[in-house]
Amino acid sequence: MSQHPGPTLAQIGEAGLLGEIFARLDAAARPGTGTDVLVGPGDDTAYLRTSGAVLATTDTMVRGRDWLDRWSSPSDVGGKVVAQNLADLAAMGGVGTGLLVTLVAPGDLPVRWATDFADGLVAAAARAGVPVLGGDLSSSEGAVIVSVTALGEVPGQGAVLRSGAVAGQVLAVSGPLGRSAAGLQLLRRGDDDRWPSPEVAQRAAQLVGYHCCPDPDLTQGPIAAAAGATAMIDVSDGLVRDGGRIAKASGVRIELDADALTALAEPLAQVLGAQSALDCVLSGGEEHVLLATMEAGAVPPGWTTIGTVTAAQGGPGPGVWWRGEQATGGGWDHFGG
Amino acid sequence: MSQHPGPTLAQIGEAGLLGEIFARLDAAARPGTGTDVLVGPGDDTAYLRTSGAVLATTDTMVRGRDWLDRWSSPSDVGGKVVAQNLADLAAMGGVGTGLLVTLVAPGDLPVRWATDFADGLVAAAARAGVPVLGGDLSSSEGAVIVSVTALGEVPGQGAVLRSGAVAGQVLAVSGPLGRSAAGLQLLRRGDDDRWPSPEVAQRAAQLVGYHCCPDPDLTQGPIAAAAGATAMIDVSDGLVRDGGRIAKASGVRIELDADALTALAEPLAQVLGAQSALDCVLSGGEEHVLLATMEAGAVPPGWTTIGTVTAAQGGPGPGVWWRGEQATGGGWDHFGG
Repeated sequence: MSQHPGPTLAQIGEAGLLGEIFARLDAAARPGTGTDVLVGPGDDTAYLRTSGAVLATTDTMVRGRDWLDRWSSPSDVGGKVVAQNLADLAAMGGVGTGLLVTLVAPGDLPVRWATDFADGLVAAAARAGVPVLGGDLSSSEGAVIVSVTALGEVPGQGAVLRSGAVAGQVLAVSGPLGRSAAGLQLLRRGDDDRWPSPEVAQRAAQLVGYHCCPDPDLTQGPIAAAAGATAMIDVSDGLVRDGGRIAKASGVRIELDADALTALAEPLAQVLGAQSALDCVLSGGEEHVLLATMEAGAVPPGWTTIGTVTAAQGGPGPGVWWRGEQATGGGWDHFGG
Repeated sequence: MSQHPGPTLAQIGEAGLLGEIFARLDAAARPGTGTDVLVGPGDDTAYLRTSGAVLATTDTMVRGRDWLDRWSSPSDVGGKVVAQNLADLAAMGGVGTGLLVTLVAPGDLPVRWATDFADGLVAAAARAGVPVLGGDLSSSEGAVIVSVTALGEVPGQGAVLRSGAVAGQVLAVSGPLGRSAAGLQLLRRGDDDRWPSPEVAQRAAQLVGYHCCPDPDLTQGPIAAAAGATAMIDVSDGLVRDGGRIAKASGVRIELDADALTALAEPLAQVLGAQSALDCVLSGGEEHVLLATMEAGAVPPGWTTIGTVTAAQGGPGPGVWWRGEQATGGGWDHFGG
């Protein structure tokens, strides 16, 4: 991390780092000035007034596993861990009401890494209108781990679970698919690509940027809920795996629409070729757009219909079908070696 | 970790580990059967019905920093991370309504470690009547990190902050002090001590047990709140430092009562000697009993009055005084090297 010179956490100590971080939180949201933060950072716990029903989720990123310092800036990591958590709230039809943030880091981490991380995190939270309520700092022997817990609420109707899909409905997606996986492929290839045009080069750069710090439109979660979505999930492990979770929880089959997905792959195909592009669309994770089932006539503007829900009785049961066969989707196992 | 043979996380994979953990959570609290858990583990987020005001806190433990495998069993670690989090809720006058749990571990961690950790955590949560709502699993290159977010609510009156102490009131503590620090001292000394009697040997074992898995009576938090506590905190960094946080937040001085604290040190003195015992009482952290200020006549049964609150005007300002001098308290800096 030679790109982050300057003092280390050991040199400024826990109180010094807390001072740096609190200054950033103060700038983002002061206790008592938010709509419903009664107590923010600095007491034993945060204290929040809510509508009476609370969503809660947590998601963690580990250096060397979930990001590499040579590809992702600390600000990217802050933005990405916020997006991952807020996407889970959106997938319930909800919006964020507050974040708790944990940083585990060794004493030799540059202070600059931690403050740039906080800047990225606070900026992403502020864009979503979600205050940082508090958190925890711990030291490690070397590991750098960031973890966020997001609290949220559901405007209007209740939360949209994974289990409500009904045969006869459609599967729709709130935005493009495969961008994050395509960006990761480009990073792994290295930067020696020669693009056929400045437009393709720009698209490649956008894909890498989306991988490092995704910014899906999460306002689509409550919009889909209001439109009558019957099941919803965000795409964190890929269309086939996450669609499969809806299928299994709902006891239905989801038949993917090859034409629609080939069309979604087209912008990626210019950069990666047709087959890789389609693989990214089907199996690429960390996309964090929303997948939802609903009546065909209810699909909101901007969403794309990519499949149909059918009954699972008989045959191999619930699952995702692609070109007439049950799809398995591959994907990431944290401990799979 | 040769004491944990058997398969590793890499051998059973993420799905295998989730299956083991979900089975334990199911036994503890099923979604829909709790008083207010609308959705438990297994969807994008948990979904909780609350009283309308929510407490939220998070606390993390890192292997090698916050525990050593040779002293703490995985079950101890699970119990301790729950106690630390629920103590923060109690210090607001609150009770837990749900926990989110994160485990970050390398693929070569024995499955048995993770399941024993889950058993200890679920048992501690069940004793407190708090359901596990969900969580996250991530892999690391070697670090083992456990993190809990606790949600809570405040029965009756509002939350008790650190900032309400008023001159003329007293400082009281909900239980013994210094046990955890004394237990850590004993562990560091090694087990070659020769105790003068079986009673002292038993006390030493209890202190070690309390260090590895503290079980403070956290029902005292709401009791103190109902009794009119004006400021409250749990003892996580030691009496002097945590008392100092109340003093600073409230703008008061806290003068500690030497006779009362010497009496609290007496049971430790039999094991450690008088001076070490008093040091543990004044500066020992991870105790998680509650410190609160209140009117002298309001101190609940079982609490011990250990100081008085006086005005901070003039002189050196807010702080904790011990035998006529301002105390600093030492204590732990995560990044202090």
